[in-house]
Amino acid sequence: MGFLCLILVVTITTSLAFPINHQNYLVLPHSLQGSGACLSWRVGAEANNIRAWTQVPTKCVDYIGSYMSGSQYRQDCNLVCNEAYNYAKRLNLTNDGKDVWVFDVDDTILSNIPYFSAENNWQGVINTTSFAEWAEKGEAPAIPAALKLYKKLVKLGFKIVFLTGMYEQYTDIRIENLKATGFTEWEKLILKGDNDEANAVVYKSSKRKELEEGGYRIRGNMGDQWSDLIGTNTGDRTFKMPNPLYYVP
Amino acid sequence: MGFLCLILVVTITTSLAFPINHQNYLVLPHSLQGSGACLSWRVGAEANNIRAWTQVPTKCVDYIGSYMSGSQYRQDCNLVCNEAYNYAKRLNLTNDGKDVWVFDVDDTILSNIPYFSAENNWQGVINTTSFAEWAEKGEAPAIPAALKLYKKLVKLGFKIVFLTGMYEQYTDIRIENLKATGFTEWEKLILKGDNDEANAVVYKSSKRKELEEGGYRIRGNMGDQWSDLIGTNTGDRTFKMPNPLYYVP
Repeated sequence: MGFLCLILVVTITTSLAFPINHQNYLVLPHSLQGSGACLSWRVGAEANNIRAWTQVPTKCVDYIGSYMSGSQYRQDCNLVCNEAYNYAKRLNLTNDGKDVWVFDVDDTILSNIPYFSAENNWQGVINTTSFAEWAEKGEAPAIPAALKLYKKLVKLGFKIVFLTGMYEQYTDIRIENLKATGFTEWEKLILKGDNDEANAVVYKSSKRKELEEGGYRIRGNMGDQWSDLIGTNTGDRTFKMPNPLYYVP
Repeated sequence: MGFLCLILVVTITTSLAFPINHQNYLVLPHSLQGSGACLSWRVGAEANNIRAWTQVPTKCVDYIGSYMSGSQYRQDCNLVCNEAYNYAKRLNLTNDGKDVWVFDVDDTILSNIPYFSAENNWQGVINTTSFAEWAEKGEAPAIPAALKLYKKLVKLGFKIVFLTGMYEQYTDIRIENLKATGFTEWEKLILKGDNDEANAVVYKSSKRKELEEGGYRIRGNMGDQWSDLIGTNTGDRTFKMPNPLYYVP
């Protein structure tokens, strides 16, 4: 399970410019069967129709690389975060500090795209050595839409819970990374302990259960993986950030 | 609730040629913000991020019309049905006739696109009068990918349950429509009674619960609406067929 958790390891410090190439999303002509097929595949992954995939299909590697590097991905992030804000702003919050919004971290609020981009790795298969190097550099930038949403939620009065599959050993690194990128306050930052369940659905469900047993009300729950959003104690409403690059069961 | 149920009314008899225009899916250049925005919106709807929408956003009406009329929609249907078959063929079925596959009907296995196309109505807002006329004509064609899946599931030994929000008054019409389009056998065809809950999630959950209490095992559950797939007794696995044209809560 080290692999799965390594996916979720991101680290520290100064947020550099987003080092991805800003090429446009390649809209391939329809006559290329491959284009429509890869769009179908991406939508299938987002809608939870395709599950437990271990890597991007070979024929879609270029498509997914263009998507993740380009503006369509960012636009998709914007849409989800806008919709989340539209929902959140209509809620009546109790002023008891118990209305929380749960965010996953990796590729929900902090981006690992620079890692994949630097290796031109759009299959989404993690090389544990190089990923560890990336993680130790601590250059995960904020996902702009998520940062904007976070700030608005704080302003509305939500308490923020970051719930990540990253191991507790990385607590300090993660705190620095979050603060350096603008995520400056939170109610709880929950990392995975050695005794926690390896499976993301089970682990995250149990942590959310603890939150609710502690009197918190999970008004919103956002993640890039379906395993962030299913199971038990999923919250009043869930939001799926796009991620057709890797799958965490 | 007549409106919601009317959405789910489809009728009888001879399957005509699919009378939609076979224009290609219009892939608009990326520079048109509207294009990427409408793709984001469509993906947002499929991923259940956008909920309770009452019509297609004005700026996306042409985009959704092209999508539903063109080959990308069909390709998306193919992908979901292929994935469903890949899942289904790996299951071990018990030969007791209790392994069932639940299908919603409208725009899951039978298509209302001819209705929307004839009126060039891609906002997805139902005109109850004209929709009733369409329904009474009984010309709802099979969705090709779903028909192919259905036939394969029958061959694998699944018992088929059709669970629709259409009212029981339409039973005969529906039976004729199903048979005429190639859906020739089923274990149960469940239509909505006057005393059933109007809300689709509640109604469909209660019917699935009855199935399971009757000893059936819901191995797969497929619908074009999230309200087909959430609630209780959702089955071992769900499949979301594409439908960015209307939303049934």
